Amino acid sequence: MPLATPLSEQGQSVLGFIQTMQPTLCHGLAAYDTASFQTDHWERGPNEGGGVSCIIEKGSCFEKGGVNISAITGTLTQPSEQEMFKRLLAQRQTPVTTLDNARYFATGLSLVLHPNNPFIPTVHLNYRYFELQTASQWLWWTGGGSDITPYFLDTDIIRHFHRTLKDATDSVDPALYPTYKPACDRYFYLPHRKEHRGMGGIFFDYGHTQPFPYYDSLIQACLEAFLPAYTPSITQHQHTPYSPSDRAWQCYRRGRYVEFNLLHDRGTLFGLKTNGRIESIFMSLPPEVSWTYNETNLHKTHTAFLDIIAQPIDWV
Amino acid sequence: MPLATPLSEQGQSVLGFIQTMQPTLCHGLAAYDTASFQTDHWERGPNEGGGVSCIIEKGSCFEKGGVNISAITGTLTQPSEQEMFKRLLAQRQTPVTTLDNARYFATGLSLVLHPNNPFIPTVHLNYRYFELQTASQWLWWTGGGSDITPYFLDTDIIRHFHRTLKDATDSVDPALYPTYKPACDRYFYLPHRKEHRGMGGIFFDYGHTQPFPYYDSLIQACLEAFLPAYTPSITQHQHTPYSPSDRAWQCYRRGRYVEFNLLHDRGTLFGLKTNGRIESIFMSLPPEVSWTYNETNLHKTHTAFLDIIAQPIDWV
Repeated sequence: MPLATPLSEQGQSVLGFIQTMQPTLCHGLAAYDTASFQTDHWERGPNEGGGVSCIIEKGSCFEKGGVNISAITGTLTQPSEQEMFKRLLAQRQTPVTTLDNARYFATGLSLVLHPNNPFIPTVHLNYRYFELQTASQWLWWTGGGSDITPYFLDTDIIRHFHRTLKDATDSVDPALYPTYKPACDRYFYLPHRKEHRGMGGIFFDYGHTQPFPYYDSLIQACLEAFLPAYTPSITQHQHTPYSPSDRAWQCYRRGRYVEFNLLHDRGTLFGLKTNGRIESIFMSLPPEVSWTYNETNLHKTHTAFLDIIAQPIDWV
Repeated sequence: MPLATPLSEQGQSVLGFIQTMQPTLCHGLAAYDTASFQTDHWERGPNEGGGVSCIIEKGSCFEKGGVNISAITGTLTQPSEQEMFKRLLAQRQTPVTTLDNARYFATGLSLVLHPNNPFIPTVHLNYRYFELQTASQWLWWTGGGSDITPYFLDTDIIRHFHRTLKDATDSVDPALYPTYKPACDRYFYLPHRKEHRGMGGIFFDYGHTQPFPYYDSLIQACLEAFLPAYTPSITQHQHTPYSPSDRAWQCYRRGRYVEFNLLHDRGTLFGLKTNGRIESIFMSLPPEVSWTYNETNLHKTHTAFLDIIAQPIDWV
């Protein structure tokens, strides 16, 4: 088993839950597809943990998708790793004295789905937990989010996704959705395009100010909300006919997904910097993408969609 | 005319030459295609310069390509711009006292070609010139390179490309190719893949230790060498039949091109940070790209190619 052992019972709680959720999510999604998920175990290094990747490709519903978990551990000896953790820790009030030989554990579940049908949105979620034991301090924090990237402005689908996530976060604390929704809009932003990546959802990071069970419940509620939030879009659109120009628009918009993930996404960059498994990290990248030049005509036929990508609105 | 005015005669010399070369290169390439280059002028902002982009798309030979020039100017008031120049200047011995309100000028020509036929390599070149006037210092530097990214190991084509560039750099200084060739291999490297982007060429950056005419001649020689270095691959392969699996390999390998440009390429990141025109910067991104999962079988059929991508060899 390549998964690392957590440093604490908190870590064990998160890891245990995402280990349960991985097959649940795969099973729930495979019900919509004739293809099935293929499972790969990978190891980061001796005693450094690894992960389990479940990937579906060229399916009847999903062109590409993955439900991946990882649990890694290590000692902060490399300056580049220390740098990265310093940036993470700069977010909190407690100053960290030294990271030399600090022991860390990080675990998370990531899901990305790129359906064939352009009327079914691309979707992403990630929930993660970190812990760090320095010579004198014990630190932990969590983060995560679920967000939807449709290619067409099907407001019922987007509204339902947001509403379901709001219900999930409300079950822990009604103060969360009003904070996490705009945080998601802010995070998934491409400054060079002056566009948001999609139609948002929820996002939080560096969560540690509440007691651990608060975040533990939150992660559980959000992961359990995923299938009910997303799968109605499959039921509704898996047989919706689409034209070559609908497909072209989907492949073109997928370019923005790649731009965000390679230029900005913290999870992708964390994976690359911590010697994660490339094929698992890049399962997020779409199977077919196009960059065509200066698509002003394509833009003219999608103005309502582009208006919201430029300026997010409230969905619930 | 959106091009900025250089701060010096040196800048004028480079700008004048690349303005001459842009139509020469377009004309030379269009001879191989039934499509033609379309020209767009863009302005960065009032009195901040801009550029001229010549783009070809969906041609008989070129699936997408561009020959772009830009000439921009500005005053370093933004901390982010100052940061970027500080990183550039960290490369030289002379310490820079202050960048507050320093005036800069940057010009360059970039060319990228993504042919339809997988047996014709993707190719890239960029030559650039910077100048900076601070309160007390006058600085200039140059950089550039030409490199080839084939999809198949056609050694004659790669050897000819390197040989022609070696002849061009030898005409200025025979010491250059032995330095610029390994610099190109080092620069176009994807650490997360443990692969070089392509089969190399030449690359230099922060060039300023020789008198300006040395670099001026170098840029001219390299730009003039481009058509003779590259076009034989078109003549040889524009009618070479290819299979769907050859095309799949090309689209898959193009993913590495995107990964490099968005994760590492200094020119791309410079363009994004200096508010360059996105459509011109991203003309480098391939028109059709695929990221498929864990292509071990695809890799098995290209081992000789992958060996060189992993460990560059000498070509001349």
